[in-house]
Amino acid sequence: MSNYIDDELLAFGQRLRQLRKYRNLTQVDLEISSGVGNADISRIENGQKNIEIITVIKFAKALKIATKDLFDYTGDLPE
Amino acid sequence: MSNYIDDELLAFGQRLRQLRKYRNLTQVDLEISSGVGNADISRIENGQKNIEIITVIKFAKALKIATKDLFDYTGDLPE
Repeated sequence: MSNYIDDELLAFGQRLRQLRKYRNLTQVDLEISSGVGNADISRIENGQKNIEIITVIKFAKALKIATKDLFDYTGDLPE
Repeated sequence: MSNYIDDELLAFGQRLRQLRKYRNLTQVDLEISSGVGNADISRIENGQKNIEIITVIKFAKALKIATKDLFDYTGDLPE
């Protein structure tokens, strides 16, 4: 896969981890609230997994943020 | 599929169309620059297709915008 895509999957994963921890959720908590398996969450957070927009939307809902926040890799943390 | 997901796929599609037109690109132009078939682009713009993050990243690169802009449904148009 091309570098810019690898880099962005990694940045997305790191942002997801940052926001999950900010909400004081474990991967299992996020699994329960989003319906996405925690093994997948771990791979996603390590930039090792391409996922669908629907999964991203579920994460955003579980984290009580706007979907765009998950792609704002260097942005502020939400209220 | 649940309503909030349907609504967001529709919002995403409308934003993609808005940004594509803002860049004066046809669906075929976007197909050529992103590698995503124009039939798929049409379904995506109509909120009828779930896609992968990698496809979104390719769209953002082709439109010369940040990926987060594609999820900023009511946001300003980029420079």
